[in-house]
Amino acid sequence: MTEPMMKTVALVGTGVIGRGWIQVFSRAGCHTRIYDTDASQIEKALAWFEENLEQDVADGVLSTQEADTHRSLVSAHRDLKEALSEAEYIQESGTEKLEIKQAIFAETDKAANPSAIIASSTSGLDMNDIAKALPGISRCIMAHPFNPPHIVPVVEVMPTKKTKPEVVKRTVAFLKQVGQKPVIVNFYISGYLINRIQAAVVREAIHLVQSGVADVDAVDTVMRDGLGLRWALLGTFGVNNTNADGGVREYYRRFGESYKAIMRDLDPTPPSFDTEMIERIGQGVDTMEGGAPISEICRWRDRMVRKIRTLKEEDLHP
Amino acid sequence: MTEPMMKTVALVGTGVIGRGWIQVFSRAGCHTRIYDTDASQIEKALAWFEENLEQDVADGVLSTQEADTHRSLVSAHRDLKEALSEAEYIQESGTEKLEIKQAIFAETDKAANPSAIIASSTSGLDMNDIAKALPGISRCIMAHPFNPPHIVPVVEVMPTKKTKPEVVKRTVAFLKQVGQKPVIVNFYISGYLINRIQAAVVREAIHLVQSGVADVDAVDTVMRDGLGLRWALLGTFGVNNTNADGGVREYYRRFGESYKAIMRDLDPTPPSFDTEMIERIGQGVDTMEGGAPISEICRWRDRMVRKIRTLKEEDLHP
Repeated sequence: MTEPMMKTVALVGTGVIGRGWIQVFSRAGCHTRIYDTDASQIEKALAWFEENLEQDVADGVLSTQEADTHRSLVSAHRDLKEALSEAEYIQESGTEKLEIKQAIFAETDKAANPSAIIASSTSGLDMNDIAKALPGISRCIMAHPFNPPHIVPVVEVMPTKKTKPEVVKRTVAFLKQVGQKPVIVNFYISGYLINRIQAAVVREAIHLVQSGVADVDAVDTVMRDGLGLRWALLGTFGVNNTNADGGVREYYRRFGESYKAIMRDLDPTPPSFDTEMIERIGQGVDTMEGGAPISEICRWRDRMVRKIRTLKEEDLHP
Repeated sequence: MTEPMMKTVALVGTGVIGRGWIQVFSRAGCHTRIYDTDASQIEKALAWFEENLEQDVADGVLSTQEADTHRSLVSAHRDLKEALSEAEYIQESGTEKLEIKQAIFAETDKAANPSAIIASSTSGLDMNDIAKALPGISRCIMAHPFNPPHIVPVVEVMPTKKTKPEVVKRTVAFLKQVGQKPVIVNFYISGYLINRIQAAVVREAIHLVQSGVADVDAVDTVMRDGLGLRWALLGTFGVNNTNADGGVREYYRRFGESYKAIMRDLDPTPPSFDTEMIERIGQGVDTMEGGAPISEICRWRDRMVRKIRTLKEEDLHP
């Protein structure tokens, strides 16, 4: 294994998001020091981590020896200062409330090594607001993972207006080295990239069902057995580029007007998300899923995502 | 191989869409009679079909014997009446212009067996308009494939207001039997399902690049290494259902308000698709793709889509 750029990482906050990072960093060979104000959270996170290691050994993803190595790299701490000692990269994954994140960042900025990078897993806040009052704002950065980060690799990276370019560069390089796919979000916009694109899809998907055009399973089939198959390989622009012999330029020139007509026809009103609406979609999903427990579907989903990633690593895009 | 529900199929129009259907029906064991007013189109389609068969044999997807069987099931015809004789299912894939499709349907309705179903591959027209003047409107139906249909299985099926329910049922059953994934579009809406969802994504993706939030590769990474990986497995509602322990109902209850805020922030204006806009995206794609020929990317894309479909067939959704 290549020596990681950052030998020691600290994780502040070990809830659902924080715990996923334990696996990302420990499997990359980083000393991973975890901290939480809530001791029961740490215990739950370590139990989850252990369960995942055992599952990976059972599935042949890891050897027993590799699992032992990963395990040995993780340490739990009840004192922030102690957790942060030696950490060159800190990943905060606290509760998604501005005042809470501001308080965590203030404490962390004070206690961390002067050269350490402090990243936040925030999924909706503006990093500028989280770090605005800090002496160390220039080393603060957003690194918002897809959940769970050890399965789905994309991470949205957004600097504050005062973050040093060097910090952006090192964060991106480090996240790449540990196996993630960082993308730069140049400035704050609600939902960043992932949740904006998701919101655009969810809005139209719900409209299609609510207006009676199609049922839940039909809309999902379009994604599962159509659009999604290609997006998982090439992305939206990459797909458009393969839609005409002359590439994306020819495609947009030929179909721009048709696209505009459809885009103008999309209803910009958000769905209500009221009880009736939610129940209607819920019943559609019940019919479609046929009652398999969600935990089982999630395990299948994660196993399959890994397999698709392996396919892509074995047969690289030309 | 199971005996197909429809032993003989006729394809009217053998351009890029029509030729893909040759493979779908012949590999399912149907006698596939192809017709085009343009003899050179037929030749091109047969050459393409032959090339694909040879590639499939080379790739081990087909045995030589299977390829021979598929080949033997295909016949080309210059006379419409002759092409339609014995056909129980007819798939029209002519030029995407209302008057042209109306003329093809009028001729086909006159010449076809009284019991034959006549389906159109139209990607944007209203099936009600195509078939409105026909005595046989009750056997007319839309069956819009994703391109190429022998690789990506989803097919949008929309009846006219006068199509017999029996025709819808038989079309769906037959398309399933030949390996496609038909979905019902209950009534006409511009873009149907696939192109509406695609338009929603393309619009937001272009806005993100044009407003300077992110570059082309960042937006595509979000799809390739994030959203697309899951949509290819579970669809959008299926993914939302795994986003909370309590399923899609809990997820929408908890995040409905956040979704609404992002949805309200999405710019409903279509991109201009003017030269400058197209060139900007084009350059982003050039940088991302690094100059691989589009034909090579398409071959990779189709090979990989097949592999993902095989993964899904081997490890079924619980």
